Amino acid sequence: MQTLERIRTLEVATHAGERVRVAGWLHSLRSMGGIHFLVIRDGWGLVQAVAESEAELAPLMSISAGLESVISIEGEVVQMPQAPGGIELHNLQIEVIAPVTMAPVVPLNKPKLSVNITTLLDHAVVTNRHPARRAMLRLAAGAMTAFREILLARGFTEIQTPKIVAAATESGANVFRLDYFGHPAFLAQSPQFYKQMMVGVFERVFEVAPVFRAEPHDTTRHLNEYVSLDVEMGFIENHFTIMALLRDIVAHIMASLNEHYAAELKLLRVELPQVAEEIPHIHFAEAQEYIYRRYGVDVRGEPDLSPQDERWLGEWARREFGSDFLFVTGYPMRKRPFYTHPDPARPEFSNSFDLLFRGTEMVTGGQRLHRYEDYLAALEKAQLLREPFESYLEAFKYGMPPHGGFGLGLERLLMQLTGAPNVRLAATFPRDLNRLTP
Amino acid sequence: MQTLERIRTLEVATHAGERVRVAGWLHSLRSMGGIHFLVIRDGWGLVQAVAESEAELAPLMSISAGLESVISIEGEVVQMPQAPGGIELHNLQIEVIAPVTMAPVVPLNKPKLSVNITTLLDHAVVTNRHPARRAMLRLAAGAMTAFREILLARGFTEIQTPKIVAAATESGANVFRLDYFGHPAFLAQSPQFYKQMMVGVFERVFEVAPVFRAEPHDTTRHLNEYVSLDVEMGFIENHFTIMALLRDIVAHIMASLNEHYAAELKLLRVELPQVAEEIPHIHFAEAQEYIYRRYGVDVRGEPDLSPQDERWLGEWARREFGSDFLFVTGYPMRKRPFYTHPDPARPEFSNSFDLLFRGTEMVTGGQRLHRYEDYLAALEKAQLLREPFESYLEAFKYGMPPHGGFGLGLERLLMQLTGAPNVRLAATFPRDLNRLTP
Repeated sequence: MQTLERIRTLEVATHAGERVRVAGWLHSLRSMGGIHFLVIRDGWGLVQAVAESEAELAPLMSISAGLESVISIEGEVVQMPQAPGGIELHNLQIEVIAPVTMAPVVPLNKPKLSVNITTLLDHAVVTNRHPARRAMLRLAAGAMTAFREILLARGFTEIQTPKIVAAATESGANVFRLDYFGHPAFLAQSPQFYKQMMVGVFERVFEVAPVFRAEPHDTTRHLNEYVSLDVEMGFIENHFTIMALLRDIVAHIMASLNEHYAAELKLLRVELPQVAEEIPHIHFAEAQEYIYRRYGVDVRGEPDLSPQDERWLGEWARREFGSDFLFVTGYPMRKRPFYTHPDPARPEFSNSFDLLFRGTEMVTGGQRLHRYEDYLAALEKAQLLREPFESYLEAFKYGMPPHGGFGLGLERLLMQLTGAPNVRLAATFPRDLNRLTP
Repeated sequence: MQTLERIRTLEVATHAGERVRVAGWLHSLRSMGGIHFLVIRDGWGLVQAVAESEAELAPLMSISAGLESVISIEGEVVQMPQAPGGIELHNLQIEVIAPVTMAPVVPLNKPKLSVNITTLLDHAVVTNRHPARRAMLRLAAGAMTAFREILLARGFTEIQTPKIVAAATESGANVFRLDYFGHPAFLAQSPQFYKQMMVGVFERVFEVAPVFRAEPHDTTRHLNEYVSLDVEMGFIENHFTIMALLRDIVAHIMASLNEHYAAELKLLRVELPQVAEEIPHIHFAEAQEYIYRRYGVDVRGEPDLSPQDERWLGEWARREFGSDFLFVTGYPMRKRPFYTHPDPARPEFSNSFDLLFRGTEMVTGGQRLHRYEDYLAALEKAQLLREPFESYLEAFKYGMPPHGGFGLGLERLLMQLTGAPNVRLAATFPRDLNRLTP
């Protein structure tokens, strides 16, 4: 029966009046007054097909093939303003490729996936087929592509660094441990050390790869494995060079999603943020002063911002600058990792930043130390042994320029962009304290 | 002193007659008859600078800044046919950004890195700065970019699947184990199960990500962590659909390297292979017959090809078809994993393939089972319990089209392409039986 070459659902509209063949999953089937409306879902979209006789449906009915059956449909493309997409298939010839006789665990053809999050995640293998879930995952793919695009255009080299490591990246707390042929090893918490080493090789590097955090917290904002978009760049002036780069990356991601993912954004009711030519910024100390003056809450001297502080600052940025984004710079050194570069003028503060998006932290970054002697002093101050860091230190011993970078969690970005209530909904197959499958 | 904006070394040649500023590492310094030749290496290339007086060199000499020091040089761009690249900088103004006073552990400015592989890998943080090492790593980056490019153009969606998993991908042997909040877990040997599940979502998916193999072998061809380029595609005819796709991917990678990485290919003396419109293919059984007839070695009935068999077949493909590539199809079912689709006409053979490149296996792929009942039977035949595979099975229970794919090891590809004697030389920071740092 497969005389015609299969086309994608997205292409059907350009074949009005012709006979075409599509293939995919039986997404829905309704019968009204002897007329049967089928919706076929393929890897890209949906198309409606209309059977006006039982005979046309016989290949399905004779073997009780139900929803999610994999089928092929040949039909004539008819323009029909009231059909979804303005087009439908008539005079059908149906072939069943893989019949499904059990109803899906979760209905996939309602506009919303109305199940609790546990069921949704337990059955992610199936629920990821829902158009809204697909839209979320497609936006993630689009963000990765846009991220790479702009960095390649700016002379960055893509790297892939090891995930099984001998030294934990930062404090050594909250890392997954494993036995590596009789030696203790860890899963990388971030590519921090490796991307810095690679600045010594290519100056400008980026990586898209999983990172692993053994944090025993069960929150709506944390995953134990996530995709990190990492950047590191040499020959910077200070952290403001990195902030300018990050601004351009965020702007490019938004522009690219806007250009290529209109259908997904509409389905998820996402309003993309405007990214100003220059994102406003405020120093950590000024931010605390502002909170004290405006809200009477004296957070001055606290080493970090609370989620409430961030929300207040987000509101301020929106009111004052009409911006969904705000850089907070100069976090106190005592809360930042040992490789953080201090502010030369106020050494208790750092050349670091957080990017807040709609009042929530989205990215952390900054300038790193680059002089060998500074690393030796910083390790000593942090009461860390030199030995586990020997290879890392070699990069600085043999010449490193001023450099910095940032890490951006893909799922966190998607969560904030789509307003999802839980970061797990922005992951394909999330890993959390209690979830190791699917 | 930094009055001029820095330009990249690659751009210097377009500024003949102008004064420019470059920055990078002091790659070499030779003095001949009172004239000093400096070579600066930045993230992209090299440029020569000539100091005709001690005064120009004073910023370096006064603090004993040696090779690998990070410096900035302003100078006038002079065309000089005998200089490398036909260009050099004169009338220098040097600024030292980060001085290095110790000689590098390994000389970086000789055309070849003449050290044993252990030293090279122990000091990969530094040796990766050598132009030949950089060329290798840049080709790897280029291969990843080209791989994604062609797949995105063909409607594939990029996925990122979990690396901490509850069920080992295949036999359960040779996996790294870890404790996941009190539950046993594994590092993914491949994204096999997840990419198949995602065929149910997007039909066509790909992933570029690390995979982990706890194989206790110390060979020149195996790594314990490597970057896998994975593809999975639905609605295929059989494994030949996947072979045609793989052919196009390999051809695109080669064309893209040829277009964008001429300097790296030249430096590494790589001759890119021609990829025929259709790569020749031979069935496993015929291949064994050929070896018997031609070499008198009776390998018929063996369940797999030996490296020697592959070399003979590679020679045959070159002689017979002028091809560096050869597909061997139809490997016996008994050596392939349980999800392998049998050849409907000869069920003891499979719808699978290996792609040989210059007589060595480079890619393994094939068609997978897609019917739920077939999976139940295959698991039973393989004496595997159903329970660890419940989520995976859910994909097939709810409708999966005929599908297949392949996995391509990035480091293996680079090793074969460049003729490197050891796959470790194609990795940025390799992981092997005895190597966990850097």
